[in-house]
Amino acid sequence: MSRDAEAPDARFGRVAVIGVGLIGGSFALALKAAKACGQVVGAGRGRANLDAAVALGAIDVAESDVAQAARGADLVLIATPVAQFASVFAALAPALSPGALVIDAGSTKQDVIAAARVHLGARIAQFVPAHPIAGAEHSGAAAAKADLFRGKRVVLAPLPENAADSIARATAVWQACGAHVARMAPEEHDAVFAAVSHLPHLLAFALVHEISQRPNAVQLFGYAAGGFRDFTRIASSHPEMWRDICVANRDALLAELARYATRLESIRALLAAGDAAGLEELFAGARAARNRWLDGEYDF
Amino acid sequence: MSRDAEAPDARFGRVAVIGVGLIGGSFALALKAAKACGQVVGAGRGRANLDAAVALGAIDVAESDVAQAARGADLVLIATPVAQFASVFAALAPALSPGALVIDAGSTKQDVIAAARVHLGARIAQFVPAHPIAGAEHSGAAAAKADLFRGKRVVLAPLPENAADSIARATAVWQACGAHVARMAPEEHDAVFAAVSHLPHLLAFALVHEISQRPNAVQLFGYAAGGFRDFTRIASSHPEMWRDICVANRDALLAELARYATRLESIRALLAAGDAAGLEELFAGARAARNRWLDGEYDF
Repeated sequence: MSRDAEAPDARFGRVAVIGVGLIGGSFALALKAAKACGQVVGAGRGRANLDAAVALGAIDVAESDVAQAARGADLVLIATPVAQFASVFAALAPALSPGALVIDAGSTKQDVIAAARVHLGARIAQFVPAHPIAGAEHSGAAAAKADLFRGKRVVLAPLPENAADSIARATAVWQACGAHVARMAPEEHDAVFAAVSHLPHLLAFALVHEISQRPNAVQLFGYAAGGFRDFTRIASSHPEMWRDICVANRDALLAELARYATRLESIRALLAAGDAAGLEELFAGARAARNRWLDGEYDF
Repeated sequence: MSRDAEAPDARFGRVAVIGVGLIGGSFALALKAAKACGQVVGAGRGRANLDAAVALGAIDVAESDVAQAARGADLVLIATPVAQFASVFAALAPALSPGALVIDAGSTKQDVIAAARVHLGARIAQFVPAHPIAGAEHSGAAAAKADLFRGKRVVLAPLPENAADSIARATAVWQACGAHVARMAPEEHDAVFAAVSHLPHLLAFALVHEISQRPNAVQLFGYAAGGFRDFTRIASSHPEMWRDICVANRDALLAELARYATRLESIRALLAAGDAAGLEELFAGARAARNRWLDGEYDF
């Protein structure tokens, strides 16, 4: 394992970050803050963004070529939008050191794992899939911060091919970023996040789009206030990233959309019938459930 | 106009606040902070809440009887859930001083005005309807704060019967709370807020309710993160208040629900077709519109 001379305690050695946005940049900053890595090479499509990542101290070297960035790396993080994973795996496969650990930050897991199986081939055991449950509506390296993962959950979705040592190393990497590591099967992961993350994003995008298309959009936005601002915060999220997530997790998301539409129809029926007691019961139940959640009753 | 001996600059005299929750309590604190009122009498259903309002210094005297609270008042604010307005107007009518100004903080305007016409009768000209665009998911007097209305919009929806002087006084009261006063016709108000406030509340209640009803609700809430938290913040809002708003503004809200369902169906079709470009265009358009809104492009 190569060691950077200036960081002798660098547990995870030389690191390559493929896709230096909010997540990739924050990951690099977190490992550096923990003095847990040697040199960090960042690879990405946009020169200005990579320059920002260097200026921020997230990466030491900027690369446009994925294979070049990964050559000699002990740890590779893939943090691009998920639709690019296939081409990233394909570029990585011939460049990976035999002892290198590959991890990712993709918001979906079944599609990412399928792409890894196709393109990593015999190196599949080196890849330990994960999804850090952290983010923001801001994107790009400039939004990166060392504590983005602190106290947050990372869902690890290990493969049957992963050696126990690889899983332990991947767990240690994410823990070094300050995260709590949990485990889930890939299909379970995708179903859960379709419900609590992907669906709300779609609903928020839909509302802002609907309002923006009205003839009186200027008036409507003019009177939108704090409730609207928070409800739609995630509609300022990265369009390409969310396009990829929706397409990658299409089946689970379609199922969630159908359930939500049915729920909305039942509320519409209460409203149309003027069923004040029914509405109040539903609102009170939702508030109570959300407040139990805020109180940590669902933490584990 | 009666003056409180201890507040000689009290421009709005003796004030009665009917419904001393977040809004009523904050209104009283704001007028007191501006030294713009004399004694404040608060009327409400819950003794513990009124005691909290007295302890907080929002009101000087607690009353359970609306007519008793309003007797001798120069200014009366009605800040109960809107379904109670009819009975409040009925109690006020015989108790109002001829020079008293009545204002309200109801989130809907057509139903409030209809109730005022029925129950205030010949005193209708004393009532200048308004809706302060400020709130929080927290409710009750304990959540009140003097700066709740500072820099926020208040929509005034004056009646044809209102004298210019009454409208000017109502405007001055809200300005004394730090608010910017705008004007709208009642039906326009109700249509605008159905779109940018009432609908998002219903959508947020619906999502939390849907998640809470699942067999794996504990797991789902366990993995819900910051995006879910902000999206659903308004689902912690006051159930009775939102029951009343939904019922009072039923027609406009049903129209908004229908438009949103149509929009959601078109997005579902894009997703089902795997139309990545179509989804990205929609997401990018929504993000751009929201960011223009955040940048103040729709301010007026």
